Amino acid sequence: MDGRAVEVYRTAARIILQKGYDATSVSDIADALGITKAGLYHYIKGKTELLYEIMKYGLEELEREVLVPAREIADPEQRLRFVVTTHARIVTRGDGVVTILVDEARALTPAQNRNVMRMKRKYIDCLRDTLDELKKLRKLRGVDTTVAAFSITGAINWLSRWYRPGGELSAEEIAWQIADIALNGVLRPS
Amino acid sequence: MDGRAVEVYRTAARIILQKGYDATSVSDIADALGITKAGLYHYIKGKTELLYEIMKYGLEELEREVLVPAREIADPEQRLRFVVTTHARIVTRGDGVVTILVDEARALTPAQNRNVMRMKRKYIDCLRDTLDELKKLRKLRGVDTTVAAFSITGAINWLSRWYRPGGELSAEEIAWQIADIALNGVLRPS
Repeated sequence: MDGRAVEVYRTAARIILQKGYDATSVSDIADALGITKAGLYHYIKGKTELLYEIMKYGLEELEREVLVPAREIADPEQRLRFVVTTHARIVTRGDGVVTILVDEARALTPAQNRNVMRMKRKYIDCLRDTLDELKKLRKLRGVDTTVAAFSITGAINWLSRWYRPGGELSAEEIAWQIADIALNGVLRPS
Repeated sequence: MDGRAVEVYRTAARIILQKGYDATSVSDIADALGITKAGLYHYIKGKTELLYEIMKYGLEELEREVLVPAREIADPEQRLRFVVTTHARIVTRGDGVVTILVDEARALTPAQNRNVMRMKRKYIDCLRDTLDELKKLRKLRGVDTTVAAFSITGAINWLSRWYRPGGELSAEEIAWQIADIALNGVLRPS
């Protein structure tokens, strides 16, 4: 994907996040990018298409940076820690691209929504499969792996609502703290 | 608060949750309640006021059912379990009143927003103070109590995005599972 398209998605995501999807116009986004509306339509087909493109970009980022490398990690405990810390880093990186994913799904067409749901399910399945593997190895506490997978996802995604750069802890420290809480929460004490 | 006002808030919350705030009209809400717009204006001043009233109702519910009784629990570990399970029950009760709180804050006036933020802070402070108490008693793992408080809140609030009644686990079982994950995640093994 060319760098300009990424900039379009990130800028649009930031504005939609601030103003809300319904209140954001294509002109707002063009203004923020310093280009004309016609110039913006070189990258996007329209507002609904744009929202979908942003979500797709965010979920593909999650797949590329989290899910694909996670598959290479044989040890499920290490894999779980990798998924949590890497996903947390993406959220605190703060471009809002992934953040926005959670709230505006109602503006998608049914076909777009199905595709977004399918990509989100891949993420949850990765977490749950890893937890199921740990269960087979008797390393898991008596927790339901679905509840555990969603609870961990919730803790990570919630970061986008409270994390501010420049606080007492660095993004890296926070990512590790969340991983510690998540792993201790689901694994038997060794 | 009279029962009819509660019904107005719950119904409005459900519709705003489905359609989004901007796309919801006062007529939509009146229709769903089976009353006229004039009848609805007996309960609400307007759309912005309504959103604020819903949020206030949801946060007052949280204060009444979680924060006030929590203060009566001397043992911080028991208090933590009470806060997590009771809050999770409110979310799975599924009236959407609390759920909606998290997304639509941008439609509030600055004064309303300040009040909502103040009430949300009371909730986070309750969790964090409880965790700080556990830290003093050397019962806490080496986790930052702010990160822990927000991570636990995220896991609970995320319930509203994935929980569906009639699944394999009851709402009560899920509430206890989340509490187990949260407590094991932050407490030293005893």
